[in-house]
Amino acid sequence: MKTEHRAMYLTEILLDAFLDTRRHTEMLCAPLETEDYVVQPTEEVSPPKWHLGHTTWFFEEFILKPHAREYTFFDKDFSFVFNSYYETFGNRVVRANRGNLSRPSVKRIYAYRQHVTEAVQELFEHTADASLWSLLEIGINHEQQHQELLLTDIKYILGHNPLLPAYSENIKEHPVAESKEQWFAFPAGISEIGHEGNGFCFDNELGRHKVYLEPFEIAANLVTNQEYMGFIKDGGYTRFDLWHAAGWDWVKQQKIKNPLYWHLIKDQWYNYTLNGLHPIDPDAPVTHISYYEAFAYAQWKGMRLPTEFEWETAHSHFLWGLRWEWTESAYLPYPKFKKAEGALGEYNGKFMVNQKVLRGASIATPAGHSRPTYRNFFHPHERWQYTGFRLAR
Amino acid sequence: MKTEHRAMYLTEILLDAFLDTRRHTEMLCAPLETEDYVVQPTEEVSPPKWHLGHTTWFFEEFILKPHAREYTFFDKDFSFVFNSYYETFGNRVVRANRGNLSRPSVKRIYAYRQHVTEAVQELFEHTADASLWSLLEIGINHEQQHQELLLTDIKYILGHNPLLPAYSENIKEHPVAESKEQWFAFPAGISEIGHEGNGFCFDNELGRHKVYLEPFEIAANLVTNQEYMGFIKDGGYTRFDLWHAAGWDWVKQQKIKNPLYWHLIKDQWYNYTLNGLHPIDPDAPVTHISYYEAFAYAQWKGMRLPTEFEWETAHSHFLWGLRWEWTESAYLPYPKFKKAEGALGEYNGKFMVNQKVLRGASIATPAGHSRPTYRNFFHPHERWQYTGFRLAR
Amino acid sequence: MKTEHRAMYLTEILLDAFLDTRRHTEMLCAPLETEDYVVQPTEEVSPPKWHLGHTTWFFEEFILKPHAREYTFFDKDFSFVFNSYYETFGNRVVRANRGNLSRPSVKRIYAYRQHVTEAVQELFEHTADASLWSLLEIGINHEQQHQELLLTDIKYILGHNPLLPAYSENIKEHPVAESKEQWFAFPAGISEIGHEGNGFCFDNELGRHKVYLEPFEIAANLVTNQEYMGFIKDGGYTRFDLWHAAGWDWVKQQKIKNPLYWHLIKDQWYNYTLNGLHPIDPDAPVTHISYYEAFAYAQWKGMRLPTEFEWETAHSHFLWGLRWEWTESAYLPYPKFKKAEGALGEYNGKFMVNQKVLRGASIATPAGHSRPTYRNFFHPHERWQYTGFRLAR
Amino acid sequence: MKTEHRAMYLTEILLDAFLDTRRHTEMLCAPLETEDYVVQPTEEVSPPKWHLGHTTWFFEEFILKPHAREYTFFDKDFSFVFNSYYETFGNRVVRANRGNLSRPSVKRIYAYRQHVTEAVQELFEHTADASLWSLLEIGINHEQQHQELLLTDIKYILGHNPLLPAYSENIKEHPVAESKEQWFAFPAGISEIGHEGNGFCFDNELGRHKVYLEPFEIAANLVTNQEYMGFIKDGGYTRFDLWHAAGWDWVKQQKIKNPLYWHLIKDQWYNYTLNGLHPIDPDAPVTHISYYEAFAYAQWKGMRLPTEFEWETAHSHFLWGLRWEWTESAYLPYPKFKKAEGALGEYNGKFMVNQKVLRGASIATPAGHSRPTYRNFFHPHERWQYTGFRLAR
Repeated sequence: MKTEHRAMYLTEILLDAFLDTRRHTEMLCAPLETEDYVVQPTEEVSPPKWHLGHTTWFFEEFILKPHAREYTFFDKDFSFVFNSYYETFGNRVVRANRGNLSRPSVKRIYAYRQHVTEAVQELFEHTADASLWSLLEIGINHEQQHQELLLTDIKYILGHNPLLPAYSENIKEHPVAESKEQWFAFPAGISEIGHEGNGFCFDNELGRHKVYLEPFEIAANLVTNQEYMGFIKDGGYTRFDLWHAAGWDWVKQQKIKNPLYWHLIKDQWYNYTLNGLHPIDPDAPVTHISYYEAFAYAQWKGMRLPTEFEWETAHSHFLWGLRWEWTESAYLPYPKFKKAEGALGEYNGKFMVNQKVLRGASIATPAGHSRPTYRNFFHPHERWQYTGFRLAR
Repeated sequence: MKTEHRAMYLTEILLDAFLDTRRHTEMLCAPLETEDYVVQPTEEVSPPKWHLGHTTWFFEEFILKPHAREYTFFDKDFSFVFNSYYETFGNRVVRANRGNLSRPSVKRIYAYRQHVTEAVQELFEHTADASLWSLLEIGINHEQQHQELLLTDIKYILGHNPLLPAYSENIKEHPVAESKEQWFAFPAGISEIGHEGNGFCFDNELGRHKVYLEPFEIAANLVTNQEYMGFIKDGGYTRFDLWHAAGWDWVKQQKIKNPLYWHLIKDQWYNYTLNGLHPIDPDAPVTHISYYEAFAYAQWKGMRLPTEFEWETAHSHFLWGLRWEWTESAYLPYPKFKKAEGALGEYNGKFMVNQKVLRGASIATPAGHSRPTYRNFFHPHERWQYTGFRLAR
Repeated sequence: MKTEHRAMYLTEILLDAFLDTRRHTEMLCAPLETEDYVVQPTEEVSPPKWHLGHTTWFFEEFILKPHAREYTFFDKDFSFVFNSYYETFGNRVVRANRGNLSRPSVKRIYAYRQHVTEAVQELFEHTADASLWSLLEIGINHEQQHQELLLTDIKYILGHNPLLPAYSENIKEHPVAESKEQWFAFPAGISEIGHEGNGFCFDNELGRHKVYLEPFEIAANLVTNQEYMGFIKDGGYTRFDLWHAAGWDWVKQQKIKNPLYWHLIKDQWYNYTLNGLHPIDPDAPVTHISYYEAFAYAQWKGMRLPTEFEWETAHSHFLWGLRWEWTESAYLPYPKFKKAEGALGEYNGKFMVNQKVLRGASIATPAGHSRPTYRNFFHPHERWQYTGFRLAR
Repeated sequence: MKTEHRAMYLTEILLDAFLDTRRHTEMLCAPLETEDYVVQPTEEVSPPKWHLGHTTWFFEEFILKPHAREYTFFDKDFSFVFNSYYETFGNRVVRANRGNLSRPSVKRIYAYRQHVTEAVQELFEHTADASLWSLLEIGINHEQQHQELLLTDIKYILGHNPLLPAYSENIKEHPVAESKEQWFAFPAGISEIGHEGNGFCFDNELGRHKVYLEPFEIAANLVTNQEYMGFIKDGGYTRFDLWHAAGWDWVKQQKIKNPLYWHLIKDQWYNYTLNGLHPIDPDAPVTHISYYEAFAYAQWKGMRLPTEFEWETAHSHFLWGLRWEWTESAYLPYPKFKKAEGALGEYNGKFMVNQKVLRGASIATPAGHSRPTYRNFFHPHERWQYTGFRLAR
């Protein structure tokens, strides 16, 4: 293929991916009432309308504004409303206030989406400038990340409403796992860690490098609801010796007694899922737990969580991708980590303190958005994502 | 008129008032987008949909549930969602969480309203039981109180949105006042205070009683924006000697520098009103100020605020009803105050500490809902109502 | 007596009172360990060493600095350390930080006291300037007020130490009261309220004026521990209908279940007093309760608290002076209230919001510091003073 | 040497070390006024008297109580007062309340120290039970750790007193460093990490293991005050792009503009040291900075902090031991980490989340208490220790 043809071909693929991603975000919102787009029951959760606007703003700010000569802004004030943490762009709505904004209306945000989607399409149809591709690719991946948050934020909004409305009857959150205990053993040695090849990845995966691993074993399966109920019955939430000091403070202050979305109704455990409230499936992986809980469970079993390096080394031996898996690793830069220039440099590096790495993906992760070197990260108390864990020893 | 006829006649009047009140509440919401019904930018403010539901729940809880034999509940869960502070009825959504509820949807709340309105109408059309009238009258007055809150809460929601959308072009918040300084003087003597006659009033107005007043003078007009700007220019917000200690703490912690809704844009003062952002009208009464600010202004002038007894004694000499007026009086029970039995006893008495009395009414007060003996009350820092003040000396 | 002689005579009396007051403060501290002078277990309580320094600073700041020509400052930094709320004098140690200061040491503060006491004595022995008398009188009364706080702060410090050390074996906090129920009835009419005559009083007592009182009855005795235990047994702390909304929030947030210093040990009630932990004396007046609790008790009895005007009108009929008595009155300015000029104007007026009036005195009040028109004031939740109450109806 | 003789000999050495350690703690307190022992200006800091009592309680609880048959408790209540974080032993004084306790008095705590010291001496003089040695060794090391905290807590107490009193004229905090820039380069390869041999170490140093290191360079010297002033002058505290998101929040909320104890007086930088307030020595290592600040400085230089593995690998090439040095490493368990049984298991493991590792030692570290494998750990915002840092690249 000639270079020019190849460029056109790649552009077409990317443009299709772009349009698919834009559509998929809106499809995720299809079951919502207008009111569901607006609320923010806790600071970690953003209103769905904010996700719709923010992912759109990202394309406007990083692609259209600097590169599309004749682009007309839909509304100049939206930059203030939909900026998230990019301090580079000045003032922004404080995160905790996102749920206080009734305007712009949902309808208007959809119009904004269409406006920007069309302008991006226009730009890429008439431009062969290869240097814009990577920006588009980042924008697509950025929106995919928000799709995951969007679904878990929706779950949080509906799952904390006293009426416990279902999101959809057609979603099955808990694929049944093989619960037979099985371990994979690895000898001591050097592993190569980090992204390799030309495919897309984030900056925090780059700098492929060696790590030395002591011998370890890693479980073939995620810990299940049934196993976790054993921990609860044995008083796991009342035994301080199983917890980090910070975890124990969290348990006491927040009065934590079970995973998020679990309800004890007449001595029977139920959990809220996207298709409503149901009795807990004992064979499904335990979900919506914090790192603190995963750690305490491992202590209770006399085991531990794998490191992210063990996980990456072993991942091809087991099934993964339905739950984000907590690791024992802190979220730190790889040895050759380089922050991107400008505002995109704010993407990952500035969060590299006080967070733990999660590996894998979840049922909320869009198709094609996961890979074995992907590093997700959350604070150790957070649990509104589809988090789970497997043991190591 | 025979007793029976008289009862029917009164029922008809009350039923008309009931239906008018229900319609008026909904009319106030007509300019809103669905999203505007949902949010709660600060704990004091309730989402419009909550007002719609709560005023409906009140009729259901106090009239239909105990008195309508064949009443079918619209949704049993709504009692939990729309109860406000009535501890008698058990659990309720914590006030600060009202803005986190996307469901029930606005549409469903309107259906609930219709359901209850029709059931009340049905009940009163077929019942001559005079003992229900007073309950209906309380329900109407309760909904009227919420109409006032509804409008000021809407103003807060729109006036704190970064886009500053107008509510309606047809509302004029600031009727021009006569700003000529004029004082009415009253000699020492005994005044009669409190409600008299058969008309409706709240329990906190009852127990007409005597108070002795020292000689006083009271201003004919409310303090204006122009006068208040003099206070600002003279450093009123930076001179601790003008303020209560608690007021000074409030000024410093909240960084208060002007009345609520005032914006200084290129050295020109604007204020947000229900018809949008406009330059301040110097002759209009200063509005949306706290008791602390009113007090500091009075100190600055070497004067004071009137007591509620002075106000009630003097009210027939001046025009009032466009702004709620702060008084120097603390909100306390009258000497013969009797709390109502049961849940309605929670209506007023339990708030009689740490609040100041306001007299008058405001442009948000529904027609017929004000009277000279009406005692409104707010905490000294609150200012999202249409508050103003006049001086005394 | 010639004017000159009379002035000398009065000076002598005042100087004696001054020296007595200075000595009495130090005597109150005699039973303390050095460490007890330092701590501040809650913001409302000040460390004893701070009281020692602050009362000294008051004489230095208001008398020596402006009026003693040759006065040498003991330490210029003390002005910063020992200023309390006088915003007029610039920066000061934030109230909550008083317990963080180990220096100046107790020993040095006693040297400071002696330095200032001697300088004041020197000044008044050689000056016949009558205009300084009233300043000295204010300083003495100021220190007397702090003596009361000093003793109750010491009680708080020792009574919140896990070792519960006694302050002194010789103090009897709970004089036995006559507990026979008795009521005094007063007809409707006009009362004269406020200070009269030439004796010392604070500015908040001035402006003698008339109030009209409806007929009332007032109890001859304070409510006793035994009576209050009846309220506890009847679930008084669990019945929201007896409480103000703000009081109920306080009960729930602070988990209040009994008066301060009460301990339930093996089903027996004890209370901590200045001579240690002892079983509760059923006939002693209930002490260390908040206004909220006094109000709830009155509601439970179907009665109310007296107003400060009723109390002042009736006070000569009953014994008082062992407990500060909560009234239903809010702390507000009298009709003719005039704030003093300058820093002394900060003494009382700026606290006239959100507080309740207490009348009487307590066992911690220095001899000669109480009078029937004295208006003490605290926030409705405060209870570390020797507070009690009598009922009215 | 025969086994028996050897045991006696070792016991003697340990007993001497024990008595030295006990004396050294008290010597550190010699310059204090009684009042300085009592206060706790911030939650991280403990009052000196608490350190004196807690280190004593440790010997009582872990050695005397279980092993000394005839031991008589000095005061049973002290267990409650001086327990720190050992949840195993039930209730304890909440950390933030340590500064509220005036009793037990300093004098009584010294008596308690003597009582326990003598009982331990007695026990070890008459016991040849080798199994107690390791407990004594842990107790000594525990007290040595507290000696370091004791000195830095004293500095905090005096350095936050408005009078800024000196602790001692004889202490020199800032040894002059060679400030010539010099780098040591290390090739890629495997390093052995962790404690080795029979000497004392903490459990978190154990499990010697291999790590693979990419090539790195590490600075020969700590960053100096002069270099750090360059960062300040260049707006380091105002450029969000240099900071972690969490660090930037900390800077803004706490209004951080310079290292702890720095004061800008008439355009000249001073810092408070244990011998008082002095102009900053430009060649001394910058001290009392948080990890956040160290990281931002490194970003500003286009470099990074070393990991703890790089530091341990390189430590023999440079001088260290005057400042605790921040590393980029999170405080995590080594691969073979095993928590001790019982209460001693609470010593280290439960803090292994949300903290960063520091390596080295400081001028406050007792002689003999440091070693190259020692892992200290603090939260990234803490800076009251003698912290500094060196760069890597």
